[in-house]
Amino acid sequence: MTSPAVLCSAMQRHRALFKQWLLVSGRKSRASSAHLPMPPTLSKHNGQLQPRRRQFHWTTRSRSQDVEFTHVRYNVQRLGFAAVTTEDMMFFDSLLPGRVVTDPDILEASNVDWLQTLRGRSQVLLRPQTTEEVSQVLRYCNDRNLAVNPQGGNTGLVGGSVPVFDEIIVSTAQMDNIISFNTNSGVLSCQAGCILENLNNYLEERDFIMPLDLGSKGSCHIGGNVATNAGGLRLLRYGSLRGTVLGLEVVLANGMVLNCLSSLRKDNTGYDLKQLFIGAEGTLGIITAVSILCPRKSAAVNVAFLEAPFYILIETSGSNNDHDQEKLNHFLEKVMTCGLVTDGTMATEENKIKAIWALRERITEALVHDGFVYKYDISLPLERIYEIVIDMKNRLGVRAKRVVGYGHLGDGNLHLNIVSEAYDQQVLDSIEPYLYEWIAQHSGSISAEHGLGFKKKDFIYFSKPRAAVQIMQQMKAILDPKGILNPYKTLPPFSQ
Amino acid sequence: MTSPAVLCSAMQRHRALFKQWLLVSGRKSRASSAHLPMPPTLSKHNGQLQPRRRQFHWTTRSRSQDVEFTHVRYNVQRLGFAAVTTEDMMFFDSLLPGRVVTDPDILEASNVDWLQTLRGRSQVLLRPQTTEEVSQVLRYCNDRNLAVNPQGGNTGLVGGSVPVFDEIIVSTAQMDNIISFNTNSGVLSCQAGCILENLNNYLEERDFIMPLDLGSKGSCHIGGNVATNAGGLRLLRYGSLRGTVLGLEVVLANGMVLNCLSSLRKDNTGYDLKQLFIGAEGTLGIITAVSILCPRKSAAVNVAFLEAPFYILIETSGSNNDHDQEKLNHFLEKVMTCGLVTDGTMATEENKIKAIWALRERITEALVHDGFVYKYDISLPLERIYEIVIDMKNRLGVRAKRVVGYGHLGDGNLHLNIVSEAYDQQVLDSIEPYLYEWIAQHSGSISAEHGLGFKKKDFIYFSKPRAAVQIMQQMKAILDPKGILNPYKTLPPFSQ
Repeated sequence: MTSPAVLCSAMQRHRALFKQWLLVSGRKSRASSAHLPMPPTLSKHNGQLQPRRRQFHWTTRSRSQDVEFTHVRYNVQRLGFAAVTTEDMMFFDSLLPGRVVTDPDILEASNVDWLQTLRGRSQVLLRPQTTEEVSQVLRYCNDRNLAVNPQGGNTGLVGGSVPVFDEIIVSTAQMDNIISFNTNSGVLSCQAGCILENLNNYLEERDFIMPLDLGSKGSCHIGGNVATNAGGLRLLRYGSLRGTVLGLEVVLANGMVLNCLSSLRKDNTGYDLKQLFIGAEGTLGIITAVSILCPRKSAAVNVAFLEAPFYILIETSGSNNDHDQEKLNHFLEKVMTCGLVTDGTMATEENKIKAIWALRERITEALVHDGFVYKYDISLPLERIYEIVIDMKNRLGVRAKRVVGYGHLGDGNLHLNIVSEAYDQQVLDSIEPYLYEWIAQHSGSISAEHGLGFKKKDFIYFSKPRAAVQIMQQMKAILDPKGILNPYKTLPPFSQ
Repeated sequence: MTSPAVLCSAMQRHRALFKQWLLVSGRKSRASSAHLPMPPTLSKHNGQLQPRRRQFHWTTRSRSQDVEFTHVRYNVQRLGFAAVTTEDMMFFDSLLPGRVVTDPDILEASNVDWLQTLRGRSQVLLRPQTTEEVSQVLRYCNDRNLAVNPQGGNTGLVGGSVPVFDEIIVSTAQMDNIISFNTNSGVLSCQAGCILENLNNYLEERDFIMPLDLGSKGSCHIGGNVATNAGGLRLLRYGSLRGTVLGLEVVLANGMVLNCLSSLRKDNTGYDLKQLFIGAEGTLGIITAVSILCPRKSAAVNVAFLEAPFYILIETSGSNNDHDQEKLNHFLEKVMTCGLVTDGTMATEENKIKAIWALRERITEALVHDGFVYKYDISLPLERIYEIVIDMKNRLGVRAKRVVGYGHLGDGNLHLNIVSEAYDQQVLDSIEPYLYEWIAQHSGSISAEHGLGFKKKDFIYFSKPRAAVQIMQQMKAILDPKGILNPYKTLPPFSQ
């Protein structure tokens, strides 16, 4: 199983050109279960291939009522937070007139995760519009010992964005203003609730793009992207949010506003606190504004879709199309001559590029339609990136309807998805902790880009030493002493 | 004064190609004081242009005996740490046989900073070789309440790497082993004491390079680079260490080894603790090993040196020299046609490239030979990057022998250097706090890449809000409750 690593090595030589390379799916030789799951046609939307908005498809799936309460399925005990009272509601109504939501239908969509595997029972959702309002909400909740669940586009895949019990949902949906964009520096400042795709559209009109791109870009919020340290489709080319996010404004649990919304590329004055909030999944503070470095839009974009025997999607971008095509042709000639790639197609037209990308971006969505998805997002050394897919197929046999491995080859990131007809505890027990032990044994990570959220928090020790987790818990205790921010998420309790 | 911003904007369009662009020096029209200071010929080394090693020139400057004790010049009070006793020395001798240094000449070089502006009075320097030895040293020192000064290549420019009083110097000089290098992933793991240039040479033999390059690369250690979040000459192309450092091993003040030496590009399991130690200047722990993502060596490198009326150095790198030259020619034609650039030279040969780079890289060194240097390393919005140079010239008049502004145009980073014949408190009082107030007023940073160290720590409030500094102090209290690690550095005391 050295093919992905060898191919990756060949690609490395062209790294500056490549925007992304992806290990899309399984071995051709392994029958239909290894094939690329095709996205379903959505007849409710005129049978057209819709823009890749996770929320668009919400209404086509009417199973959310069937989702069991999280605390029942996972047998979680509620912590000793206060319950929301009539007085609390009066306070919220006076602070956020018309923006205190108790409508059951809206709450339903915010209580259940996108994968429809978790359900909270929150009775109230708040829609602040300003940092000051978020600050007042948190100060009040902290004083009252009310738990809070920050929520962006609710597109997370590990249950970080939905309440476990009756946490108050604080949504960033109405914090969607662009604060500034500097065309000299490429630095964008905006509120946390801006939808990623909207930001990208705004930038494209100005000849720039966002440094990240996700399948859920039509719904996800930039604040949520930062809070989960989202990776996605441009990481290989433009690096992680730890490098591109230049500044954050964050409201701490006690309502204090931490203004580190710098627009500078370099700032070595003290510890880089903003890094604490990147990837903390809202457990240390609510991100209210983001400043991010955006690259220029590339004049030339090429996409190659190869079979090698894996499906590989490569996107290149550069300033000169002739140059890029020459390089790409040279690369393809080389990998085909040496037999590393057997077949493929190239695209330069926008429509064809979009169609190829849709194959990749809508795998997540397709799997949800296929049954209950046991979803894993792992990092592994390149040499071993596909081993676990084969291993799992053998291990689960007919109990798994499908075992799919795809991901980001250049990043060493495998999305391992196992599907069964319905949730099945026995299947889960066959996967976990076996899978996590396998990952730990091979120095991988149990969460490459999805985070830990609710579902993975207890498995942190497979990827982080006990000493590190203790320090994380101390950080949490400093910044959120009462633990009101996104409880039951990211870190295991102290006692463990 | 929009020239740098306009030029930068023009260059932005070619961003993918450019490795670096630099604002090298002052306006041609402003007489000799604005000209590029040329590096001195070093007759002790056969009159050849030596590799840019800061330590090489140490012996040519014999003024270090004249450097006043830091605690005298800055009127600092020693904190209540224990003093080193005979018993302590016996412990160190038994732990590190032959690696406990008390030789006054060696201590002299480690007590005085490279700029020769600070002098500590440490009596002992330890040279551990393993993480376990560092752990034992720190556990002992923490128990005994002995202060410790971690030291790499001692090339820092803000006094972060030299003791203020009698802190025990823990040097990483003998921790210089490469642990592993993976040619598929480009990930290098090594001990903290590896010299940057040695690592780069090791990688170049394997067709890779380090993602950072500094003028001090012949002496500086990778551990020190990470501890100071060094920027340098490749940041524009390969991003900051916050993105390229994948893992760290750190020994905490109490001797606990925090092993986060991951080699994975993506790992979203809990808070990213390693970020705390990047740029913490050894105040939170001693970095003992680093894992870092290294880019492929580029087949084609071009350097352009332009006058526009600023001196601008541009380096491009790519995989195809014809393509790169075509793009660079196109760019140069454009900027010369529109009058943005008036004159310049291009280089593709390695010798000529090195000679041009030497002009830039040895400015720091040249200034030291010129007199006492008041050194500032600031970030500013591009639109204002040169304003402060002119402002300072006018403000200081003949009291300044030289006011020089150079830096990293693409990063918005200006190195402002003011030289007087000798240290002059009145000159300093004319510069500070005026300069810091000016920077704060224009939303800049008082330290772009050099850090705060000893010299700048009290000015942190000009770039960070009080709430942020308080949180930093809490982090320090958690990780180093007795404050033994690099005291008097980075953060102002709690009481302020």
